[in-house]
Amino acid sequence: MKLALQEANRAVEKEEVPVGAVVVCGDRVVGRGHNRREELQSPTAHAEMLALQEAASSLRSWRLQDCTLYVTLEPCVMCVGAILQARIARLVFGCLDPKGGAAESLYRLCEDPRLNHNVVVTSGVLGSECARILSEFFVGLRAKDNDNKVARTNSLLSPHGS
Amino acid sequence: MKLALQEANRAVEKEEVPVGAVVVCGDRVVGRGHNRREELQSPTAHAEMLALQEAASSLRSWRLQDCTLYVTLEPCVMCVGAILQARIARLVFGCLDPKGGAAESLYRLCEDPRLNHNVVVTSGVLGSECARILSEFFVGLRAKDNDNKVARTNSLLSPHGS
Repeated sequence: MKLALQEANRAVEKEEVPVGAVVVCGDRVVGRGHNRREELQSPTAHAEMLALQEAASSLRSWRLQDCTLYVTLEPCVMCVGAILQARIARLVFGCLDPKGGAAESLYRLCEDPRLNHNVVVTSGVLGSECARILSEFFVGLRAKDNDNKVARTNSLLSPHGS
Repeated sequence: MKLALQEANRAVEKEEVPVGAVVVCGDRVVGRGHNRREELQSPTAHAEMLALQEAASSLRSWRLQDCTLYVTLEPCVMCVGAILQARIARLVFGCLDPKGGAAESLYRLCEDPRLNHNVVVTSGVLGSECARILSEFFVGLRAKDNDNKVARTNSLLSPHGS
């Protein structure tokens, strides 16, 4: 999970919502990813998706049945779906996502017996660190947004604009 | 949907499970895709994902809120998740997928009021054509599999193998 947090920090540097993921097979990291939605302007460029794609590419197989995916934030519907598609054995995540999480918060998609694959889930691993990086990011974003509002107001109040 | 069926036919040529998708914005096709999971050895290379990625690339935005996605088969959890992430306005699909469909069969994820986006869904468009291409593919696959079994048995029965 520390490696996943490192990945999340790489997202912070790019001003992306900081989520990081790694895929581990045995004792080897075979895929890494951080959220790059804005950078790539891609709706599918979540940390988990990029880590799974890199893992499949490293192992030259779409079947990742001996792998564990570690991710700092509870995955959304798309990412849980991709974890199921890749036949990942185990999912370990940090903090919950009450608004969009699909492994525990809104749905428990990893454990639905009607689906052709199930995944063992462990949650809360380094949960506070994973949550902190997100809350700090959003606090920073709001502060920046307020600064911009003040700058815009000042510019409107100034007779010459700026 | 006819264009999505054309895409599904491209998958047949590659011996991939034949599912095709297109993304339309206004009267313009901005993304196309067919299932390429085996070809790319990627767990995320479903028709819808590739069509969404192409559309985001064409429109230079991850937000596809004015777009409609047409797909021959009811999307799985991952693909419905990606449709939600891309803020697609409308999903039109051909035939149901009773074992994995997440828009109507197993879940109705496009209509969950707890999620931050909802999608209008229309199902059954050219449904029989979309189902036929899949059933023909699987009949062909089983026939091939039986031929291989017969060939293997003959080879074992032959004193010199083959």
